Amino acid sequence: MASSPSDCIFCKIVQRQIPASTIFDDDSVIAFLDVSPLASGHLLVIPKVHANQLIDLPETVASDIGRVLPQLGRALLMVSGADGFNVLQNNGEVAGQVVGHVHFHLIPRFKDDGLGYRWNAGAYEDGQMNDVCDLFKQALAS
Amino acid sequence: MASSPSDCIFCKIVQRQIPASTIFDDDSVIAFLDVSPLASGHLLVIPKVHANQLIDLPETVASDIGRVLPQLGRALLMVSGADGFNVLQNNGEVAGQVVGHVHFHLIPRFKDDGLGYRWNAGAYEDGQMNDVCDLFKQALAS
Repeated sequence: MASSPSDCIFCKIVQRQIPASTIFDDDSVIAFLDVSPLASGHLLVIPKVHANQLIDLPETVASDIGRVLPQLGRALLMVSGADGFNVLQNNGEVAGQVVGHVHFHLIPRFKDDGLGYRWNAGAYEDGQMNDVCDLFKQALAS
Repeated sequence: MASSPSDCIFCKIVQRQIPASTIFDDDSVIAFLDVSPLASGHLLVIPKVHANQLIDLPETVASDIGRVLPQLGRALLMVSGADGFNVLQNNGEVAGQVVGHVHFHLIPRFKDDGLGYRWNAGAYEDGQMNDVCDLFKQALAS
């Protein structure tokens, strides 16, 4: 997991083997402009260490990413003039993940921009919620 | 920001004034089942301290949230049997934020579930990317 696959485009950006519009860089994390933005100022925030998905990421690195999100969000609002923004992080091809290196999208949002998550909320049947809750507690204890 | 508005439903959940299917609870963060799930196992991860949006959240607390995401993601995959998941965090009404207390959605994803983010990628014009990059660096330095 900690190795850098030779074909990982985001590892190449971290190692400055290919260029990117990097706007933030610390010991653990870099942020740069998405080259195919959903809106001007669309950012990608990634760990310097290679990990395919969030579940593969060491807690300390996930913590480092969390820490920088508020300041990057404030900068995004200043630069883009957006009214809000989404943080989106996709795990697995089925979830829309295209590059196999953990990345958090910060996406500027404007009224009537046509973006956003397709929302199709359901409901739990009687008792089902308790069952799912118990399964989570078992999973977290295992 | 650190106060608990009397009308904040998530503060009431933190304070156990209203019930929730809480699956994780530490000094800084709780996670519970969304009562209107996009899929069974859909989680909400929130700071115990009140903050409207991510940009209002202290770095230490944002870091605490980041830290727990990998283990919660692993539990979600175990419980839901999903093939992947999205992390989604909405800031501002325009971005789909409904409850005014920072929350991260963890959404199980399955093939052909009809969920996901509406993706409509654009491109920067020549030179524009450098300009936006410079604006970010100024914003982060201010």
